[in-house]
Amino acid sequence: METFTLKKIGVIRTPYAEAVAAPVQGRFEPEASGTVEVFDEFAPGLQDIEGFSHITLLYYFHQAAGEELVVKPYLDDVRHGVFATRHPRRPNHLGMTNVRLLERRGNVLAVAGVDMLDGTPLLDVKPYVPAFDRERGSVRCGWLTGKLPSTT
Amino acid sequence: METFTLKKIGVIRTPYAEAVAAPVQGRFEPEASGTVEVFDEFAPGLQDIEGFSHITLLYYFHQAAGEELVVKPYLDDVRHGVFATRHPRRPNHLGMTNVRLLERRGNVLAVAGVDMLDGTPLLDVKPYVPAFDRERGSVRCGWLTGKLPSTT
Repeated sequence: METFTLKKIGVIRTPYAEAVAAPVQGRFEPEASGTVEVFDEFAPGLQDIEGFSHITLLYYFHQAAGEELVVKPYLDDVRHGVFATRHPRRPNHLGMTNVRLLERRGNVLAVAGVDMLDGTPLLDVKPYVPAFDRERGSVRCGWLTGKLPSTT
Repeated sequence: METFTLKKIGVIRTPYAEAVAAPVQGRFEPEASGTVEVFDEFAPGLQDIEGFSHITLLYYFHQAAGEELVVKPYLDDVRHGVFATRHPRRPNHLGMTNVRLLERRGNVLAVAGVDMLDGTPLLDVKPYVPAFDRERGSVRCGWLTGKLPSTT
């Protein structure tokens, strides 16, 4: 099987030491603040990021215990294929969250809307660009329909 | 340096054999169709994905030559930090594109809005959920402001 070696380029600091304390998604606790510490050797890559109000964090679910292909997500009592969920126990343990970028202080980004555990390894930062990322028009959400808090 | 080993869980088929032929972003060629072939051993993870109209593909920029921290993106003549761009020559070579899910045929997903090269290794599939992923309200896009095609 073909594999790829990815490296930890920084660490995400959040208020959540344990999974039971973290929101299901960052959007559910939009004011939850944290920091993204990009290691010095990668800090030049942050140039001009302060122009963006939102960024996408890609990270590694380091506390996920193993991988499962069919899971019971937090928002349902029924099991679904893991690729139809955002469950952490997924092949490759990749996590993705859009957060608000509040401020850049050197190689540290202050952000809001975090949902990951404290100490989560950072793999990538991308600017959130509505023209690329925001779907317009109708979007179907399968099993999630009707299961989301009304505040979202 | 801490590293993580990720595996190829499938392959993305697109009309683009070379980077010069591919759109800058999938949104720029919304009808460009391709397929996502999930390897048999991971296919159970696709259960119920057909309920979602849009999915996020995470993949490996396998043709990116090395890594750069400051790059000249396709949409500008000025160099920016790579984390303020979507340039493929980024640390960890992670790519991310939202596509429309047209149809599931067993372990093959027919999709539209592809921008990746033919043969791109698939790392993850996530459902696109507006309540999680779609930023509302005003979004600032830094150096990209005014540089996007008006059709987007």
